Amino acid sequence: MGLERLSLNTKTTNSWTLADAVDGAARAGIPALGLWRDRVQEVGVEKATKLVRDAGLRVSSLCRGGFLTASDPAGIAAALEDNKRAVEEAATLGTDALVMVVGGLPEGDVDLAGARERVAERLAELAPYAQAAGVKLVLEALHPMYVADRAVISTLGQALDLAAPHPVDAVAVVVDTFHVFWDPDLAAQVSRAGAEGRIASYQVCDFNLPIPADALLARGMMGDGVIDFASITRMVAGTGYAGDVEVEIFNEAVWASDPDEVLATMAQRYRDLVLPHL
Amino acid sequence: MGLERLSLNTKTTNSWTLADAVDGAARAGIPALGLWRDRVQEVGVEKATKLVRDAGLRVSSLCRGGFLTASDPAGIAAALEDNKRAVEEAATLGTDALVMVVGGLPEGDVDLAGARERVAERLAELAPYAQAAGVKLVLEALHPMYVADRAVISTLGQALDLAAPHPVDAVAVVVDTFHVFWDPDLAAQVSRAGAEGRIASYQVCDFNLPIPADALLARGMMGDGVIDFASITRMVAGTGYAGDVEVEIFNEAVWASDPDEVLATMAQRYRDLVLPHL
Repeated sequence: MGLERLSLNTKTTNSWTLADAVDGAARAGIPALGLWRDRVQEVGVEKATKLVRDAGLRVSSLCRGGFLTASDPAGIAAALEDNKRAVEEAATLGTDALVMVVGGLPEGDVDLAGARERVAERLAELAPYAQAAGVKLVLEALHPMYVADRAVISTLGQALDLAAPHPVDAVAVVVDTFHVFWDPDLAAQVSRAGAEGRIASYQVCDFNLPIPADALLARGMMGDGVIDFASITRMVAGTGYAGDVEVEIFNEAVWASDPDEVLATMAQRYRDLVLPHL
Repeated sequence: MGLERLSLNTKTTNSWTLADAVDGAARAGIPALGLWRDRVQEVGVEKATKLVRDAGLRVSSLCRGGFLTASDPAGIAAALEDNKRAVEEAATLGTDALVMVVGGLPEGDVDLAGARERVAERLAELAPYAQAAGVKLVLEALHPMYVADRAVISTLGQALDLAAPHPVDAVAVVVDTFHVFWDPDLAAQVSRAGAEGRIASYQVCDFNLPIPADALLARGMMGDGVIDFASITRMVAGTGYAGDVEVEIFNEAVWASDPDEVLATMAQRYRDLVLPHL
């Protein structure tokens, strides 16, 4: 089959419940799921864990912790609490990867350097908690078009710099093709991430043009956009990465399609564009 | 007045002819213009030169050369010819700064590394021509959201790497706040650009959210978006940069406004947000 390392992120089949996604992945021969917390919370973490396990599937990652950039005491405390809950959920679900979207600028604030410092501070507070629970805080560099409103981590190199003070089993990074494909320093930083033992997840989807009116929905099915999956996959594989390859697509047209057909297309594109280079 | 270093890029007053922009800038006490080639070509380069000079203004830059990523012989030859003409136009207009938007991926091509190599090759061919004409090819790093369709140079560091093989009076860089504000390595790269004598232009405008349906139009008036002009301006000024500060805004609402009011707002925002840090 060749799908042994393929994982379906539940966002790709946005119209499906968690139970639907578990059944659909099992039908399609996809052995792993990347779960979003809201989808998990629809049934509760215990039941979600049982649903996935009973179907013989595994959880490749939990998405998402983060939003660590608040500058007010109440916001900081709330972020710490929420991330501790997310760590616990990941541990219960049996994944060691909690993907972190670290948050943008507080409303009305333009101090990007300050927001980045606060991320470092919050990580220092959370890392021991995560490590004790057997869960890694997996820092996600987001495309720079989201720097102000989603994540002040904009490059893989910056994510690695933020991870550096912490043990590798406490803070790691994800390589998501959509967010990093443009980076002229990508090959060097993927290589560094591998050498430092920090790659906890490899996520693939394409970058579609034109960027839609809601810029969050520019993610596309592999092969529909402008990303060179061969070269990026070879970079990641070259580090010895042997984990799952998760497909997470935010896209109106994909969401409007029959999810079973989306899974069939996803599996085929994975076989054609990614698997030969793994 | 404090406007001695302020320059109006003609794109900011998109509804104005060149003659209108010259008159408007003179009325507003703005001493310099950044010119787009299409606006120059409406009257011809000789007449454009005379219009600007007769009003007592100067040209801070000509925009734009570039589009160097073609991979077919005809496309390569056409790009070289067009850029040589742009160099001549800049020389005639009396500016030493030809801003280069280097182009994206050829249609259907996803080989970003290859496109970047071709930019380096074309620059090697054009640099001696520009230097002989007394004009610098001013490389513009564009925001990574434009990497595939506008410019495969995505960071200031990458622009400096591409400039490095060439004399400083042949290839330089522009620091445009909109395109680089997100870069976690910005302070180091601006400092490097200054130390290497490569900063030929400083351009300011804001980054507005949400990104509009046409992503090219996300540029905003300083103060309307998420950019920290104080910190970036201090970085640039800290290198000893003593040149013009050009304001280039692509924005439907700005374009729909009375251009004289746009200039008044622009001058005020410049005084409030940029000038104190120069």
